Amino acid sequence: MGVVVQNIERADLSVIDGLAAAGVATVHEAQGRTGLMAPHIRPIYSGARIAGSAVTISAPPGDNWMVHVAIEQLREGDILVLSPTSPCTDGYFGDLLATSAMARGCRGLVIDAGVRDVRDLTAMGFPVWSKAVHAQGTVKAVLGSVNVPVVAANALVNPGDVIVADDDGVCIVPRADAASVLEKAQAREAAEEAKRVRLAAGELGLDIYDMRGKLEAMGLKYV
Amino acid sequence: MGVVVQNIERADLSVIDGLAAAGVATVHEAQGRTGLMAPHIRPIYSGARIAGSAVTISAPPGDNWMVHVAIEQLREGDILVLSPTSPCTDGYFGDLLATSAMARGCRGLVIDAGVRDVRDLTAMGFPVWSKAVHAQGTVKAVLGSVNVPVVAANALVNPGDVIVADDDGVCIVPRADAASVLEKAQAREAAEEAKRVRLAAGELGLDIYDMRGKLEAMGLKYV
Amino acid sequence: MGVVVQNIERADLSVIDGLAAAGVATVHEAQGRTGLMAPHIRPIYSGARIAGSAVTISAPPGDNWMVHVAIEQLREGDILVLSPTSPCTDGYFGDLLATSAMARGCRGLVIDAGVRDVRDLTAMGFPVWSKAVHAQGTVKAVLGSVNVPVVAANALVNPGDVIVADDDGVCIVPRADAASVLEKAQAREAAEEAKRVRLAAGELGLDIYDMRGKLEAMGLKYV
Amino acid sequence: MGVVVQNIERADLSVIDGLAAAGVATVHEAQGRTGLMAPHIRPIYSGARIAGSAVTISAPPGDNWMVHVAIEQLREGDILVLSPTSPCTDGYFGDLLATSAMARGCRGLVIDAGVRDVRDLTAMGFPVWSKAVHAQGTVKAVLGSVNVPVVAANALVNPGDVIVADDDGVCIVPRADAASVLEKAQAREAAEEAKRVRLAAGELGLDIYDMRGKLEAMGLKYV
Amino acid sequence: MGVVVQNIERADLSVIDGLAAAGVATVHEAQGRTGLMAPHIRPIYSGARIAGSAVTISAPPGDNWMVHVAIEQLREGDILVLSPTSPCTDGYFGDLLATSAMARGCRGLVIDAGVRDVRDLTAMGFPVWSKAVHAQGTVKAVLGSVNVPVVAANALVNPGDVIVADDDGVCIVPRADAASVLEKAQAREAAEEAKRVRLAAGELGLDIYDMRGKLEAMGLKYV
Amino acid sequence: MGVVVQNIERADLSVIDGLAAAGVATVHEAQGRTGLMAPHIRPIYSGARIAGSAVTISAPPGDNWMVHVAIEQLREGDILVLSPTSPCTDGYFGDLLATSAMARGCRGLVIDAGVRDVRDLTAMGFPVWSKAVHAQGTVKAVLGSVNVPVVAANALVNPGDVIVADDDGVCIVPRADAASVLEKAQAREAAEEAKRVRLAAGELGLDIYDMRGKLEAMGLKYV
Repeated sequence: MGVVVQNIERADLSVIDGLAAAGVATVHEAQGRTGLMAPHIRPIYSGARIAGSAVTISAPPGDNWMVHVAIEQLREGDILVLSPTSPCTDGYFGDLLATSAMARGCRGLVIDAGVRDVRDLTAMGFPVWSKAVHAQGTVKAVLGSVNVPVVAANALVNPGDVIVADDDGVCIVPRADAASVLEKAQAREAAEEAKRVRLAAGELGLDIYDMRGKLEAMGLKYV
Repeated sequence: MGVVVQNIERADLSVIDGLAAAGVATVHEAQGRTGLMAPHIRPIYSGARIAGSAVTISAPPGDNWMVHVAIEQLREGDILVLSPTSPCTDGYFGDLLATSAMARGCRGLVIDAGVRDVRDLTAMGFPVWSKAVHAQGTVKAVLGSVNVPVVAANALVNPGDVIVADDDGVCIVPRADAASVLEKAQAREAAEEAKRVRLAAGELGLDIYDMRGKLEAMGLKYV
Repeated sequence: MGVVVQNIERADLSVIDGLAAAGVATVHEAQGRTGLMAPHIRPIYSGARIAGSAVTISAPPGDNWMVHVAIEQLREGDILVLSPTSPCTDGYFGDLLATSAMARGCRGLVIDAGVRDVRDLTAMGFPVWSKAVHAQGTVKAVLGSVNVPVVAANALVNPGDVIVADDDGVCIVPRADAASVLEKAQAREAAEEAKRVRLAAGELGLDIYDMRGKLEAMGLKYV
Repeated sequence: MGVVVQNIERADLSVIDGLAAAGVATVHEAQGRTGLMAPHIRPIYSGARIAGSAVTISAPPGDNWMVHVAIEQLREGDILVLSPTSPCTDGYFGDLLATSAMARGCRGLVIDAGVRDVRDLTAMGFPVWSKAVHAQGTVKAVLGSVNVPVVAANALVNPGDVIVADDDGVCIVPRADAASVLEKAQAREAAEEAKRVRLAAGELGLDIYDMRGKLEAMGLKYV
Repeated sequence: MGVVVQNIERADLSVIDGLAAAGVATVHEAQGRTGLMAPHIRPIYSGARIAGSAVTISAPPGDNWMVHVAIEQLREGDILVLSPTSPCTDGYFGDLLATSAMARGCRGLVIDAGVRDVRDLTAMGFPVWSKAVHAQGTVKAVLGSVNVPVVAANALVNPGDVIVADDDGVCIVPRADAASVLEKAQAREAAEEAKRVRLAAGELGLDIYDMRGKLEAMGLKYV
Repeated sequence: MGVVVQNIERADLSVIDGLAAAGVATVHEAQGRTGLMAPHIRPIYSGARIAGSAVTISAPPGDNWMVHVAIEQLREGDILVLSPTSPCTDGYFGDLLATSAMARGCRGLVIDAGVRDVRDLTAMGFPVWSKAVHAQGTVKAVLGSVNVPVVAANALVNPGDVIVADDDGVCIVPRADAASVLEKAQAREAAEEAKRVRLAAGELGLDIYDMRGKLEAMGLKYV
């Protein structure tokens, strides 16, 4: 506790933006179905789809002091990721902090705790994925750390990892894998597009994926 | 496990559409306050109100193979109902499966588990009522069954039962009761309309329903 | 149980409306971070921000008889607050009751239980903050009380207290404190506005709030 | 609602007692991994293992009137199964009702709601599997039904089904299948005994079940 | 925040001890089914049954400083009641604090948060009712208050109220009502004893409480 | 997925056993209040206190094939740690697997999912910390991995890390830190012993820790 790592490596913004375009479900599949946060993390409003480099915060329950410290570490294209050191639903973050983070180029917040001022955050277009919405205020009394590895919503996040977030939740791509995951994600999207056309025309997945034989071999009975 | 029932009976589409128009709360009342799924089943977007015949799926946790099998059994006006064999929040269903289901005339999905690609599903107008939104991918490794009775969200669903779903949740009408429940639902709506006018004019339920005497007899004290 | 208190004191409507304008997070801060309901209380639709005088209801699980009794006690600018005597998710309240309550000047409902007809309530512009949305019907068989102190969602509510509710949740202001809390809330808003401008211009909270020295004294290390 | 079915069929007590001896996990496996209640149903004390014929109760939330009605229907070897018509944690049942039920030969209670007097119930040796322990009292105001099919803890229970309950939870065996499930359960136990000896001696499941080839074929890599 | 009320009134120890003997369920009934904490508050070990005067603590999340302050306020026969200012599961209390509290005559702890060292607390015979067991440590950085009214587990507790706790949970008796509640509780116990004998002999509650006529009038049908 | 790491490093058994003797709360404090699993992980029986080297399992939901694979990797003094790839409460592990694991010297299981046969496991003295007890059976159809880093119950576990588990929950000590954490834990225990004696004699923590001045400086008021 009490450490701020100032220089973290980040993935290429072009790769990051490609991952945002692919979206959470595709990225998650492209990296072998890993990296998802637990489903209790939900967006405060629908329709946002972002990616960015994680600036991580480990904070005590009910204490948002480290958010101020973390904001100084933000660069264009970053996403704040806050994990409390124990389960907490307090509103660590609101419209003033969002104003400050946006001024530093921050694209959004992922927090395994609570957020407040969601009406203002929505109006500002600052997307947040959180465990709770709660007006409960926090204090500035105890140190935490910035840009250390954290576990948030049952997922490991290293500073500089790529965070992808949309209506389906939040997925973490290890920084070193970002380019190759993007490649696989784009290949997957291309493959899906062809299938979408066939399915829309009424062809069945049973036939497109050639499943009938295997199902019969497994013992599926039609009655 | 491992059974697909191919020919199920369905209620009349005109009855089904009447039940959709009445909505969940009215239908639930009309059939004696029975048939509701538990309140953890929520729509992925607001405003949808549908009814259809249940094509049921019993699926292992984290395995969506049977969804492909079930889609072949769909007819115009059906609704898929998936119950996992143990508690699960994985995303069994996304935009490709929805494309396929819509091509077969499917009106929506009710799933006591997770769903993904909700941004696309919303754009497509394919409504889903689910326990969770989660991008978590599933496998195709173990058999389940299609069109067998299932318990989903603490409600019994037989294949061919009428599913009514809207912003209030999901209600199941046994197929054989569908016509009589519709009749009662419509009678109820007519009766409510008259009351709505009186209440809007400022009359009190205490007077309209003649409750004052009974409340006094029960011992209610005004101080 | 079985008591209806008819004449309760209320705060000034001008004070109440001022508190609504300040919103939940600001009011909660202005009164020393007290008075919030637990975060499981959520609005049925986004964007509403109201305040009003609490008309409280203590009701048995699954029994909404007392809502009818409470509606007679409503005056212009009131908000119904219902707490069940044991945990319950049933739909105590729907569009007919909302029609009646609106006819009496009621501004909304806060309920530590369920609500139904949310599609209609949304169309009517009658805001509700609830623990659940569930179509489950209730009975009228057992007495409760109206305008007695209740604990709802882990917060104490006395009849006539000011309820402030928006997308961040629900905050209770004791009636006697309403005017002074409003004053503090408005002072806080004015102070925040100045900070917002500086933060938007890129100044850091670390500097504005003069935190660097204290953080260093506490032992924060930059690496 | 409001129906009491008086004459229900029951399985043979010798079969029922055999199922008790086998226990929940074995019985669940023997009937193809079906029939389990959800894991929120837990015993009030450890070590009880019972089976009996279900006398079912559908009761309103917070109303235990039908328990009195159901007790008259009990015969030697029965188990009460109560499902509330909506989610509830109230204490429907305590030591007086247990005294009455034991006097009629009842072996225990399974309740998807709350129970109280657990200290006395433990002392009496009356086992209960419940969703909650809560002293919250209930009323006797609204009818329910006895010996109708109910869904409790996400499992369907028909009156006369065999309930098996132990520290692992609760499993329901359809009455008509009880004898054949017992046979399979006993065969399973015999087969397990032989494996237990080999495993205790240090042999590996990988070898006993001949899994190595299949794992390799699936692609498992040792590094 | 930041207030310690030093002289609180307490009920008579003889009354308090009588309430302990009656137990939670009986006391809750005797005071009109009020005063129960929510069912998530559970004992760390079975079999304890205590009553005492509440010394209340309002503490920030993850900060147990005020427990030290509260211990000085304890007198023989008191029970500590801690409510965090926002939802928290941290372990505020362990064996050292219990040693200190016991030395001051404290009978136990009720905490709407977490506790740790439960193995030691059990060995010491210091009973705790809590929301969670968690080893998570807390800090001493922010003030709270002692002996102010708190809401804990959805129940209002005033300092000096009588806390009754056993395996069924926790019930609060307002200090001023303690003697009269005890009287009613003892009357209730006497009445129950007579019924217990009749029920044990096989008489039915339907007959003892004369319910048959009323059930028939309500429309109960035997089939 | 599909990888088994065969040779992992482990801490010294003497260090591991020292950590077991210190217990979870002390070890957690000694390493700076880090490494705890979430409080939903609970022991199946009270009183066990163990430590061991983690043999980790990443398994699909409802599929326990990898447990068989992991058992071959066990050495004397190890503890199995299973994390499902998505939230799951199925009973992955029962008495046969425990028999096999014990034969390999395994000291217990920590599982962020379900366990069954808890009556037998208790009788065998094989301790388990789990998220749920559920008899629900699992399949052997899909690969997972053994001895890869996993996140379980919101904590990162690397293979070979020291797992400490008792009635307070589960704490993970990174292998490389084990010896130094043990040293700090033992120093802490010695210091606590002296304080315990003073507290038992009636001295107050306020005085022992010299808190009065700081509390006054912070503004604490006695009234």
